[in-house]
Amino acid sequence: MKFSKVPEATIRRLSTYVHHLEVLEKNGEVVVSSANLARSCGVNAAQVRKDLAYFGEFGIRGVGYYIKDLADNIKTILGLNREWRVAIIGIGNLGASLLLYKEFFKNNYKIVAAFDLNPAEVAGRVSERTGKPVEILHPDRLKEVAKDRRIDIAMITTPASEAQKVADLIAQTTIRGVLNFTPAQIQMPKGFEVKNYFFTAVLDNVAYLLRWKRR
Amino acid sequence: MKFSKVPEATIRRLSTYVHHLEVLEKNGEVVVSSANLARSCGVNAAQVRKDLAYFGEFGIRGVGYYIKDLADNIKTILGLNREWRVAIIGIGNLGASLLLYKEFFKNNYKIVAAFDLNPAEVAGRVSERTGKPVEILHPDRLKEVAKDRRIDIAMITTPASEAQKVADLIAQTTIRGVLNFTPAQIQMPKGFEVKNYFFTAVLDNVAYLLRWKRR
Repeated sequence: MKFSKVPEATIRRLSTYVHHLEVLEKNGEVVVSSANLARSCGVNAAQVRKDLAYFGEFGIRGVGYYIKDLADNIKTILGLNREWRVAIIGIGNLGASLLLYKEFFKNNYKIVAAFDLNPAEVAGRVSERTGKPVEILHPDRLKEVAKDRRIDIAMITTPASEAQKVADLIAQTTIRGVLNFTPAQIQMPKGFEVKNYFFTAVLDNVAYLLRWKRR
Repeated sequence: MKFSKVPEATIRRLSTYVHHLEVLEKNGEVVVSSANLARSCGVNAAQVRKDLAYFGEFGIRGVGYYIKDLADNIKTILGLNREWRVAIIGIGNLGASLLLYKEFFKNNYKIVAAFDLNPAEVAGRVSERTGKPVEILHPDRLKEVAKDRRIDIAMITTPASEAQKVADLIAQTTIRGVLNFTPAQIQMPKGFEVKNYFFTAVLDNVAYLLRWKRR
């Protein structure tokens, strides 16, 4: 099984399955049918079975899935059974919100560093909101800090015009995963896993669907 | 041409093309080749031509694309040549950040209302950050306000456990587009365009790729 050949949409749905399995588990449920899991995730049962079949046999005929086992298995598949150490680069409104967004980092993601070109000013502003001191570092220190704190993933939340400069900095570090929140398309050397996650593109998609529906 | 049959990935890339065409235009450029547009968007030239071919003939052989014309055409296709009126429901860290995120709403999206279960408290907190009064409404008023302010799209930024309740409220209004930022999968009647946009799913994807690369 070449795990890297699994469709991205499957991986995305696995995240959803884990979330719902955790909700079920918290509610004290033990077993779930593929039909029920599918319904609560907004897909059909065949899709659930197909997505899981990439990775093995998890269901028990006539029973369904053991919730805790399936959640644990998917977490192992996704690599969520370990801690991922994350840096945020660019602490404007969006960066600060990610820094403070609890639901985002409930489980296995840990923000271990935050960077901004104006560390002192930004640290003051964020501390005011949190009521406790916040450490903001200058990007000059990215390479050193990435190594010391074993950063796995960097999230770029600078203005779009700065994104490539940040990408160039990241390319010189031990960081290997990048989540780009800006509309800029960044170029990185081979060996980096880069995903773009730009708000407006999704909003544009909704606008497009509404626009053509109204014809 | 059935516009609704165009792949979602194409629509997403069109948003990227528009962004880059606007950067080029701002830099005083007039014409761009498909190779150059492709390069700055991180795709290949054949992809650019294929994406645009869904909608007509835009390039001029041996010249490339007129930047302003192509940007205007894509904006018309995406429905970005008009204003879209947006509501944010749930003003925690994420909702507040969207409310204040300037880059997000540079062009054709306009936030016309913000809702939270604790309007007074939240309005006070957000006003402190902006230095000016901010209006936050109770979700009870969603139906009435959606109609009065002609809201097109609602962004759900509540805790996941509240998302379906909000979806049920939206279903009773004149709003037709929904962007769900929570990990909950929401159920809505036919006729609504719903997109899920959950941070952690993309981060999970990066983690997955890094995890299996390291084997």
